[in-house]
Amino acid sequence: MSEKRTDVNELGEFGLIDHLTEKTQIKNPSSLKGIGDDAAVIDNGHLKTVVSTDTLIEGIHFDLMYTPLKHLGYKSVIVNLSDIYAMNARPKQVLVSIAISNRFSVEALEELYDGIHTACKYYNVDLVGGDTTSSPKGLHISVTAIGQGEEDKLTYRSGAKVGDIICVTGNLGAAYLGLQLLEREKQIYLSNPGVQPDLQGKDYLVGRQLRPEARKDMIDQFEKAELVPTSMIDISDGLASEIFHICKQSGVGAFIEESGVPINQEAEITAIDFNMDPITCALSGGEDYELLFTVDPKDLEKVKYMADIYIAGEITAAEDGIKLHTKGGNIHPIKAQGWVHFGNK
Amino acid sequence: MSEKRTDVNELGEFGLIDHLTEKTQIKNPSSLKGIGDDAAVIDNGHLKTVVSTDTLIEGIHFDLMYTPLKHLGYKSVIVNLSDIYAMNARPKQVLVSIAISNRFSVEALEELYDGIHTACKYYNVDLVGGDTTSSPKGLHISVTAIGQGEEDKLTYRSGAKVGDIICVTGNLGAAYLGLQLLEREKQIYLSNPGVQPDLQGKDYLVGRQLRPEARKDMIDQFEKAELVPTSMIDISDGLASEIFHICKQSGVGAFIEESGVPINQEAEITAIDFNMDPITCALSGGEDYELLFTVDPKDLEKVKYMADIYIAGEITAAEDGIKLHTKGGNIHPIKAQGWVHFGNK
Repeated sequence: MSEKRTDVNELGEFGLIDHLTEKTQIKNPSSLKGIGDDAAVIDNGHLKTVVSTDTLIEGIHFDLMYTPLKHLGYKSVIVNLSDIYAMNARPKQVLVSIAISNRFSVEALEELYDGIHTACKYYNVDLVGGDTTSSPKGLHISVTAIGQGEEDKLTYRSGAKVGDIICVTGNLGAAYLGLQLLEREKQIYLSNPGVQPDLQGKDYLVGRQLRPEARKDMIDQFEKAELVPTSMIDISDGLASEIFHICKQSGVGAFIEESGVPINQEAEITAIDFNMDPITCALSGGEDYELLFTVDPKDLEKVKYMADIYIAGEITAAEDGIKLHTKGGNIHPIKAQGWVHFGNK
Repeated sequence: MSEKRTDVNELGEFGLIDHLTEKTQIKNPSSLKGIGDDAAVIDNGHLKTVVSTDTLIEGIHFDLMYTPLKHLGYKSVIVNLSDIYAMNARPKQVLVSIAISNRFSVEALEELYDGIHTACKYYNVDLVGGDTTSSPKGLHISVTAIGQGEEDKLTYRSGAKVGDIICVTGNLGAAYLGLQLLEREKQIYLSNPGVQPDLQGKDYLVGRQLRPEARKDMIDQFEKAELVPTSMIDISDGLASEIFHICKQSGVGAFIEESGVPINQEAEITAIDFNMDPITCALSGGEDYELLFTVDPKDLEKVKYMADIYIAGEITAAEDGIKLHTKGGNIHPIKAQGWVHFGNK
């Protein structure tokens, strides 16, 4: 954080909102009215509007001991844009609400908003509203993203059919392992504050955790190839949870090949260092913000040659359940897992 | 709260979401896709989309010692619908995100959602999405409301012109006095738990605080009379704050007549009991969720005969500032006031 510390009281509510949002620029013609009224106004024309919301909470979703506020602001937007892309739609606007306790200075909030503005700029999204309030404890960031999609191109969780090919973008497990590294260094620091964190050579994993990206490029790629997935979801809670959602809502089962699940080499080595099974990290880790989607077999040729897309399995009948075919040749059922925050905090 | 206490862990994340949203019914044809995908999908046709978001936080915006969860759920929707009506638009969808600590049972959340569903039903709005997560402390409710309006009927804060008539709906100050009563009884109870709260005859004030309504009826009335206000805002922070917003964004001043500010009789008596000036409660109290709007003088005849609308003053030139003309004949400047949570919590 910066050295200067301006108490938020010095600006007051209206001053604070003006200050934090003065850099906001409107770029999308559909953003008719942005911040500064009771509500934002969006022009939709003939397209469908897609809306998603997600909240990040200090002590649950992030730890400010190792999360720079700028990255946090960036990530809070990304996790919402990822949901819009997962509909095969394009985000156009975001509303950002923050609840902050007294301990946050104006400079700290500026860093947070710097990250928010950077994400908006990079993904060509307009910040059109939100709410700023105080919180008795900690920082809460709640983002609503609004996007547009063409009706016949929107992809739901419910469209997978038996025989469809299961695809995954990027690689999985890295964000989770980045978190394990950060948590380990935090514990070392807490027991011996003289020791500097040792994250040498772990930039990729730590970056995946602290500053994820949303797969806008995949939506562009699908459009170019005139490919419409039969179902799609973003991987925020781990592949196991996401395939469970697709199977439940499509009324199907799934057969996942361990060899088809993409895992980055650095993630694999780090998992082994932590005495973890790399495939478990990939299946249950979460926060990778990659896309899981299914395509009709007739589109296999299109998918096969697309950059950064991996074929991870096949959709089966519901009664076959959700199974993992391991590299060792065994077949295991895959269990869904949502957040476990209620249990361990 | 109910007697039964089911730990949220028993349901897990997906079970909890399913459980809380199973009663959700979609009524608006524009709600193409509701809960259960990465994002909701909204069909807009030729109308403009209006979006607003607001967060209610335990210990800042509400105290569960005297706020029934059902009322809280209801109010969390209302405060957002009020913002959409203040644009002269109609809310169609809401997304509700909650963050809860371990101490909330499934039954407590059911009551909260019961209030949310009741508000949706009464105002003909669809619950189409949201997010449920855990919080290290307390309850946070963040609602995003999405509405539709006709472009030439949308009312902004920036449209007031010199000479326009300032109007207020309903009455002001009652919600604030309801809060004072609840706080007083809470303090008495805390120092002597044997004493039952005495809120006899104060139903109206307490009801205004705990279970406010949004002025949907005014939007209907405007439509019927073919009246489009020149500017409009909902009164959530008190008349003084809201007129300040209108004046700032319209580049004008305002002259408010104390005799034109509607104050309910019960509120007036209670203010005096508390050694407060009733007009101060009306100007700075907040949470009434009435509408403040301006009309062109040519529309005065239309407004004059509308139910529950009061003429409170006139828009003046910016250099004249924002003034109150008291019943005693004095003229005082009115000061804006946002939330003061940062200062006193």
